[in-house]
Amino acid sequence: MAEICVLRLGHRQMRDQRITTHVFLVARALGATEGVLSGDLDESVVKGIARVSEIWGGNFKVRHEPDWRKFLAERKRAGWKVAHLTMYGEDFRAAAKKLSAKNCVVVIGAGKVPREAYELADFNLSVTTQPHSEVGALALFLDRYFMGKELGKKFSGKIRIVPNVCGKVVQHVESD
Amino acid sequence: MAEICVLRLGHRQMRDQRITTHVFLVARALGATEGVLSGDLDESVVKGIARVSEIWGGNFKVRHEPDWRKFLAERKRAGWKVAHLTMYGEDFRAAAKKLSAKNCVVVIGAGKVPREAYELADFNLSVTTQPHSEVGALALFLDRYFMGKELGKKFSGKIRIVPNVCGKVVQHVESD
Repeated sequence: MAEICVLRLGHRQMRDQRITTHVFLVARALGATEGVLSGDLDESVVKGIARVSEIWGGNFKVRHEPDWRKFLAERKRAGWKVAHLTMYGEDFRAAAKKLSAKNCVVVIGAGKVPREAYELADFNLSVTTQPHSEVGALALFLDRYFMGKELGKKFSGKIRIVPNVCGKVVQHVESD
Repeated sequence: MAEICVLRLGHRQMRDQRITTHVFLVARALGATEGVLSGDLDESVVKGIARVSEIWGGNFKVRHEPDWRKFLAERKRAGWKVAHLTMYGEDFRAAAKKLSAKNCVVVIGAGKVPREAYELADFNLSVTTQPHSEVGALALFLDRYFMGKELGKKFSGKIRIVPNVCGKVVQHVESD
């Protein structure tokens, strides 16, 4: 089974905390395997996501990485592909399909993304050529990469939601 | 052509400014017609989105609405459907397809959503039953509602991006 790692570049603790958290929550909910935080070392993001996985299940974790260039170079040597989501890139749809069976690092910039990230990437991909949200762009990229199957992913956590037409039904799962 | 209105409920200026802005940017980029802001009257969200439409094209606007209950009741009387995105709802996929040809208000909560919103909604819909991001959920809902066609939407603004494999190519469009 191919793996997706989401690398958040240039995280700024004060400015990006909520958006970066949304990036990783989407990554987890839509089937990514791991998250890597670059930029500020922000324990509240790392711990917040760990807490979500602890309660809601799955193995998704975020760790901080001080050297993203080295990290990307290592993954590339290990055969991973690198897809950088940017509004300036090529249309993402064909590439997401092509990447489907391959291990892939998805790079999501916070502030201005250094030129080298564009060059290290195998693909620079845009989800529309309009300014919008890296969170929305990531959701659509993962959806096409997993061909919609991520929406049926099961998590076994301590609690789970039972879909309901008009209320909130939460099950607390007994541990063995 | 059916229309989508995105209603952001319970916006808190201090806490939600960036996420609410992302909600509306995704709404605009993925083909929604209008945005309605409920909760705090936050001029910077309204003006920020107006500026994006001015530069990048299209007619998408956000306005503040002091009475969301009245607003939803009026739209329902005018034949619109109301879909509330919540992690507690039914799977969104079948409903998004069913709603496709209909005018629809998509309700996106910020803080805790009042019970009445669940009751006023024709559909309470979840995009996975995991905690993630209303921005990601909205992107996927719109994608299924428009059946992927939103990704080819053209905007005629003052500037546009020419998709590129590794650089940034921005065209400034001459006005007539």
